[in-house]
Amino acid sequence: MSRWEPNARGRLEQAALALYGERGFEQVTVAEIAARAGLTERTFFRHYADKREVLFGGSITLQDFLVRAVAEAPASAAPIDVVIAALEAVGTLFDERRDHSRRRQAIIDANPVLQERELIKLATLATALAGALRERGIPEPAASLTGQTGIAVFRVAFERWVNGAGPPDLRLFIRESFAELKALTAGG
Amino acid sequence: MSRWEPNARGRLEQAALALYGERGFEQVTVAEIAARAGLTERTFFRHYADKREVLFGGSITLQDFLVRAVAEAPASAAPIDVVIAALEAVGTLFDERRDHSRRRQAIIDANPVLQERELIKLATLATALAGALRERGIPEPAASLTGQTGIAVFRVAFERWVNGAGPPDLRLFIRESFAELKALTAGG
Repeated sequence: MSRWEPNARGRLEQAALALYGERGFEQVTVAEIAARAGLTERTFFRHYADKREVLFGGSITLQDFLVRAVAEAPASAAPIDVVIAALEAVGTLFDERRDHSRRRQAIIDANPVLQERELIKLATLATALAGALRERGIPEPAASLTGQTGIAVFRVAFERWVNGAGPPDLRLFIRESFAELKALTAGG
Repeated sequence: MSRWEPNARGRLEQAALALYGERGFEQVTVAEIAARAGLTERTFFRHYADKREVLFGGSITLQDFLVRAVAEAPASAAPIDVVIAALEAVGTLFDERRDHSRRRQAIIDANPVLQERELIKLATLATALAGALRERGIPEPAASLTGQTGIAVFRVAFERWVNGAGPPDLRLFIRESFAELKALTAGG
């Protein structure tokens, strides 16, 4: 099959998430994902390097988005506000796919190796944010501290959002987590 | 050789760090580490599960120390102050071994798989700190946010300390990083 397959990438992702959820990530083969999607293995490998990339392929896009948002923020903005605003802007993209995020998170929570991969992804995002801040002239250690703190806020907000019952609004959770961080680190 | 070997663990650690530094972590075998230390492979495996544990075996001790320090902090102390004080107490233990930490860090910096392991270790410490705070009655998300923020402060402080030329004083770097975090998150 070399003909164009409408929305092959999305169909493969849906099939993979369904199978990982049913049987666990380790037990599922690429052949099974392709079959469930009504596509060939060859089509799978045109879209994803391996079955793990179905879960983590979006992290490059996310990183690019955050780095660009930091680069384009007003010059006068404080570093932490730049990072939080970039994360809030990402929130809107996540809100459209909360059901997808929930299913993905359940798969990751069930597999220690995927949990480690997720931690590495988040640490890489913190490093990328620090790099984007240095590009704006923020020195170290402020740049790294701000990048890591921003990701700490995001992690806590994401966890509440993904498990939440109310309307999906990741921005709101980020704002609340940031307010909480400010309260926690104030005084002393 | 089943006789008692004086300071076998320390000798194996020294030999392993020297070899990892000379030839890269991946290239070194347990047999070579044992030979360099003048000990047998069997003795190696009485002390370490594998060659990676030589670098990461201390993380359980570190975690236990931090969790205990959080548990024993005065009831009236604010969560972030409890965590920072626990990390500062750990600083003294690190100061005695800065040369060792430097050699270990150089080995980790040269190997992406070890870098990932180090990130996972730090994330695990953040989770352990959050758990210890919950035991003190701190609710979520404050407990997780505080644990992660504390580890962000520690990471930045540790990096400056391990690369620093002055007298080894990790507590001082932790204090400075925490002061910087407070300044970064204040206002707005």
